[in-house]
Amino acid sequence: MSDRTSAATSANANANANGAVGATGESVDVVIDGYVATWNETDAARRQAGIARAWADAGRYRDPLMGSTGHGEIDAMLAAVQARFPGFVLKRTSKVDCHNDAVRFSWSLGPASGPSVVEGVDFGTLTPEGKLATIVGFIDKMPAA
Amino acid sequence: MSDRTSAATSANANANANGAVGATGESVDVVIDGYVATWNETDAARRQAGIARAWADAGRYRDPLMGSTGHGEIDAMLAAVQARFPGFVLKRTSKVDCHNDAVRFSWSLGPASGPSVVEGVDFGTLTPEGKLATIVGFIDKMPAA
Repeated sequence: MSDRTSAATSANANANANGAVGATGESVDVVIDGYVATWNETDAARRQAGIARAWADAGRYRDPLMGSTGHGEIDAMLAAVQARFPGFVLKRTSKVDCHNDAVRFSWSLGPASGPSVVEGVDFGTLTPEGKLATIVGFIDKMPAA
Repeated sequence: MSDRTSAATSANANANANGAVGATGESVDVVIDGYVATWNETDAARRQAGIARAWADAGRYRDPLMGSTGHGEIDAMLAAVQARFPGFVLKRTSKVDCHNDAVRFSWSLGPASGPSVVEGVDFGTLTPEGKLATIVGFIDKMPAA
């Protein structure tokens, strides 16, 4: 192990119960909940800061309807969703299930109170530093077009 | 588009309803069902041929209990599962849901007749040629240890 990696190794001493860590010792749950929060953060500066915390620089998001790569595109995508669906809230609806560098969780999207409009599951991968490298969303419930 | 890619482009003319194809024009369903069949093929030569059809050379499998990279390791992993759980059959229990280069499907594992023992979801990615690059399995039902 070189000196250059000693800081990361030290941070990795903070492994959580899943044996998975973030660059600052955050658990995967914290990373995922930070990611979910960016969908709901309508203050641009705070949303961008949250994206930078959760995602690797080259982070790649894909679902059946949208895609974005890198912090700037991810931020523009979330701003567009918020503009199109004002008041909608993304909620995590399952535990954060992770092993190796992989993670999955279920979610719902809709008004803060009332039934969800869209539901699905996100599959993600994490960098060795514990940031999101990829999120791929699949849809389980969607209104008819 | 260069001449070198014209063969692949031609094969891609056989896009299925999902717009996703394999190197020989196979649909993603065919690739996934070929992958599932390798779990149940106990003839080593036929299993290895099926792995070579379904997986890219550098294909990478991970679930919470097992991992293998490349055709040889994948084959050894499946042979070990078959030896440990003789008569168990892997069945796909959902549609093959795919978009972009990503795919997911649910499965069960257990005796050919009778209730399943293990259930889960596989999340995969495909190479541009339509072979499996990665499969990440998550477990939804598992017997207590």
